[in-house]
Amino acid sequence: GQTPLFPRIFGHEAGGIVESVGEGVTDLQPGDHVLPVFTGECKECPHCHSEESNMCDLLRINTDRGVMINDGQSRFSIKGKPIYHFVGTSTFSEYTVTHVGCVAKINPAAPLDKVCVLSCGISTGFGATVNVAKPKKGQSVAIFGLGAVGLAAAEGARVSGASRIIGVDLNPSRFNEAKKFGVTEFVNPKDYDKPVQQVIADMTNGGVDRSVECTGSVQAMISAFECVHDGWGVAVLVGVPNKDDAFKTHPMNLLNERTLKGTFFGNYKPRSDLPSVVEKYMNKELEVEKFITHTVPFSEINKAFDLMLAGESIRCIIRMDG
Amino acid sequence: GQTPLFPRIFGHEAGGIVESVGEGVTDLQPGDHVLPVFTGECKECPHCHSEESNMCDLLRINTDRGVMINDGQSRFSIKGKPIYHFVGTSTFSEYTVTHVGCVAKINPAAPLDKVCVLSCGISTGFGATVNVAKPKKGQSVAIFGLGAVGLAAAEGARVSGASRIIGVDLNPSRFNEAKKFGVTEFVNPKDYDKPVQQVIADMTNGGVDRSVECTGSVQAMISAFECVHDGWGVAVLVGVPNKDDAFKTHPMNLLNERTLKGTFFGNYKPRSDLPSVVEKYMNKELEVEKFITHTVPFSEINKAFDLMLAGESIRCIIRMDG
Repeated sequence: GQTPLFPRIFGHEAGGIVESVGEGVTDLQPGDHVLPVFTGECKECPHCHSEESNMCDLLRINTDRGVMINDGQSRFSIKGKPIYHFVGTSTFSEYTVTHVGCVAKINPAAPLDKVCVLSCGISTGFGATVNVAKPKKGQSVAIFGLGAVGLAAAEGARVSGASRIIGVDLNPSRFNEAKKFGVTEFVNPKDYDKPVQQVIADMTNGGVDRSVECTGSVQAMISAFECVHDGWGVAVLVGVPNKDDAFKTHPMNLLNERTLKGTFFGNYKPRSDLPSVVEKYMNKELEVEKFITHTVPFSEINKAFDLMLAGESIRCIIRMDG
Repeated sequence: GQTPLFPRIFGHEAGGIVESVGEGVTDLQPGDHVLPVFTGECKECPHCHSEESNMCDLLRINTDRGVMINDGQSRFSIKGKPIYHFVGTSTFSEYTVTHVGCVAKINPAAPLDKVCVLSCGISTGFGATVNVAKPKKGQSVAIFGLGAVGLAAAEGARVSGASRIIGVDLNPSRFNEAKKFGVTEFVNPKDYDKPVQQVIADMTNGGVDRSVECTGSVQAMISAFECVHDGWGVAVLVGVPNKDDAFKTHPMNLLNERTLKGTFFGNYKPRSDLPSVVEKYMNKELEVEKFITHTVPFSEINKAFDLMLAGESIRCIIRMDG
């Protein structure tokens, strides 16, 4: 459903170094190491002032906008014609221009070719578990969808000390990979005649303590909610649904004291919180390398897409030096 | 959908004094002041061990069971034939027999003819706000349904220091009464062409901080959820739905960081927590008298039903001395 705005520089998950700053920018200076983020933090709106929200009123993700927010103009051009921006980042480029509210200043000792993957999907999944689902040590967690976001959610469960991490995916080849991310058990819904929420409830004496949905399928969302234990279960939705989807459940599933939440970018405020996620990597709490399965030079960017589409990569780093 | 089990002694919201205790009962002794509760707390099951749940595996409400749980027998009889129990309490009676797990021992200084109303609906609504919705000081709260439970939910919002308490009810006569319970603004959905969630969002710059649904109408549940602010809004469902109802919303309403929870008996563990609710009354934090609009002797119990059905009472005390 995106506006077909072309020509455009895509790309949003990246790491970089500040080359120069515009008028009035005091938070950053040339040489700072940063992660550009597809959603921003103005630090002044009600959402930014709320401890609970990261959905900045001013700089919240907007896939349709192709220009800078302050003057409605693009900063890129070719032969006098504008090239449009993408989600405020446009990182498939050696140089880009972003709003100061869309970059997080991080520890300059962090290797940019590793921590770049923390600027979107990995933080989204990891934060969904540690910031929103918040499993307690020893609790059970079900993860729906074992792509990069789901694996990061599993990593969050592992770091939280979950006793059982049940991965749910329709593709059995995901299961072996997932073990590296702490997943202890696997459920392929195709292997059962009964609904997967029932399979999980039967495995866990009534339901898991927490679940995190990372597929965007509305049926998986319903299963993720209905598979948590009554009394204390919490389900967190991460995957982005289709426009016409309806989440549907019997209200008694709620009245039996289950909690249903959604999250966006793992509830991280980009500028305030991402530096601490980078520190988790620096102090070896969060393992980032295992998400990086491939590296290609920019000239072979299409190979990165092919790997992703074939489900062969988790994250493929695109190097700007070739 | 209850089993038609007769003859039966109904009644569940009450206060009393222990007359005698059965074998093995060590937590109570004759003379103790107690509130019988329609749902119990065994203190030994996973739910009782969980800090978050009050849905005891052993003694959770069961409207169909008409006997004591340990031996499957009734303790009441007439001319040699059993009279059945109701939700473990059967309080429309001068004397009753309950499981020790279904009575809360309270401060003997508390007037039983007042605090008896804390044994079901008032605690349910009050707890839904203070234990589950947990509004912060200065936040806005919408209450759907201004019966006794909704008014108690409003009382919880008042005690929590809410800045705006918006009452929603189809009956405009409820509004005047509700002011005594802290309700500051009123919305009658019948007065608008647009959905009530939109009316509330327009009144509150995008939505209330918290909402509590106390009608049991699935449409009101959906409105209560969709009227909370994105980013940080929390909606709590209290009202009991019909068997075939479906809660339905677009998943983006969740992904925009709203939280949806249900609660049962205000998340109070009957034996562990009710004594402290009585103390809230004793120290004048929670006002109970304003819920008690009528009193009748037991011989006029049908008058109490008439008042309730006509919507003229909030709570009518039935005295056992006449």
